[in-house]
Amino acid sequence: MTFQELIKLHPQPTAVDRDTLLRCIEECLDCAASCTACADASLSEPDVQEMVRSIRLCLDCADVCDAAGRIVTRQTAPDLDLMRTTIQACSTACVVCAGECDLHAHHAHCRVCAEVCRRCKQACDDLLKAIG
Amino acid sequence: MTFQELIKLHPQPTAVDRDTLLRCIEECLDCAASCTACADASLSEPDVQEMVRSIRLCLDCADVCDAAGRIVTRQTAPDLDLMRTTIQACSTACVVCAGECDLHAHHAHCRVCAEVCRRCKQACDDLLKAIG
Amino acid sequence: MTFQELIKLHPQPTAVDRDTLLRCIEECLDCAASCTACADASLSEPDVQEMVRSIRLCLDCADVCDAAGRIVTRQTAPDLDLMRTTIQACSTACVVCAGECDLHAHHAHCRVCAEVCRRCKQACDDLLKAIG
Amino acid sequence: MTFQELIKLHPQPTAVDRDTLLRCIEECLDCAASCTACADASLSEPDVQEMVRSIRLCLDCADVCDAAGRIVTRQTAPDLDLMRTTIQACSTACVVCAGECDLHAHHAHCRVCAEVCRRCKQACDDLLKAIG
Repeated sequence: MTFQELIKLHPQPTAVDRDTLLRCIEECLDCAASCTACADASLSEPDVQEMVRSIRLCLDCADVCDAAGRIVTRQTAPDLDLMRTTIQACSTACVVCAGECDLHAHHAHCRVCAEVCRRCKQACDDLLKAIG
Repeated sequence: MTFQELIKLHPQPTAVDRDTLLRCIEECLDCAASCTACADASLSEPDVQEMVRSIRLCLDCADVCDAAGRIVTRQTAPDLDLMRTTIQACSTACVVCAGECDLHAHHAHCRVCAEVCRRCKQACDDLLKAIG
Repeated sequence: MTFQELIKLHPQPTAVDRDTLLRCIEECLDCAASCTACADASLSEPDVQEMVRSIRLCLDCADVCDAAGRIVTRQTAPDLDLMRTTIQACSTACVVCAGECDLHAHHAHCRVCAEVCRRCKQACDDLLKAIG
Repeated sequence: MTFQELIKLHPQPTAVDRDTLLRCIEECLDCAASCTACADASLSEPDVQEMVRSIRLCLDCADVCDAAGRIVTRQTAPDLDLMRTTIQACSTACVVCAGECDLHAHHAHCRVCAEVCRRCKQACDDLLKAIG
């Protein structure tokens, strides 16, 4: 995707290691889209009654990843406390959502969604470490 | 607004004290809209150059309030860890944004925005206490 | 809510009649929150299997109302074409969502959600007329 | 990104040609992230005063692309009218935003952002044609 190239054109240097940052943004975008798609796929499953908690947590995770992705994308005058708690919330949402999707691994979309969530959690944790 | 009436019609009881919950949702909505409006008003100020950090933090705060408002609105199968870290992020975003808006109190919209942020922070902290 | 007071403090006059504008913003916020709450309430209903289309359209409507609410809130250098097509999309989403919620009027939250959607559609149509 | 793989695992076939759909989702995500990054980069430019309209329209375009991306991602029980007007709004937002970014092509991020917007507009128009 082109947005990464665009972020490199920002007039100010990033506050933290740029590769760690770019990876976190990308994983937040992928996780938001994947959770939106997984919630929707679960809605179409014959056993939707069993998928209720998974749908709810995928919706939550998509919303947090969306917010975190936007905030981490912005390089102008960042506030590290705000960034930190937001990324922390995103990391937690990803863990919780992955844990629930694991319980429905007979649906391939849940299996893939859990993987994406865990990758996003790792990218968030790496960025938290880089922020210090 | 009608959404509060609607939340009371949910088939399941809320996981936490309902008035505290409803107040947090309302403040998140008001703060998201207020931060969007304040960022935009700042963009139109003759001293926009001085408003850059305020604009950026208002955009961040709007995004976090939006996500928190949606998550707190959902009553189905909530995860308290996910709720807690998201509300914590919202509380932090509100404090940081209010602090910056205070520095521009000669603009009435910044003064009002700082008040809304502080009210939202209080509502988040009250909900955090209720969640335990 | 305070955001309306804040919008009145914008350094530039609104491009269209202010009361029509403020009402549209308020209805978009209320409709976004109501659709988020209705989708979530439907997820908790024993007949969730019958509610799938309603859930999906409530999620869509919440997303469009959110975007429309933000865009209409901004008064700086607006583009009327962009505003017009966005409000048109919001009006359509509200009609479609209300129509589906009507089919589930035995659930009080669907009945209330349909009313909110229709009120939002009206506010959007009034703003479209004001824009010309 | 993995979300595309996940969408292919949906239990129901897509309502329209899948490659056209996937391309539109991807372009909406890239455009939303690029507009968020471009608005932020413009905020950091020494000539921010000249960038006000570009910032505002990038914020609008990001919000519309976000909503359109989510709606097009959902495959369960879609409503074609709702999809059509939303994609139409997205196409319009992209044209308007690209046009403004073109005026600031001395900033490389504006040049790249305009390209991404035009690619997203094309993907929206192709999907509109596929929907009919």
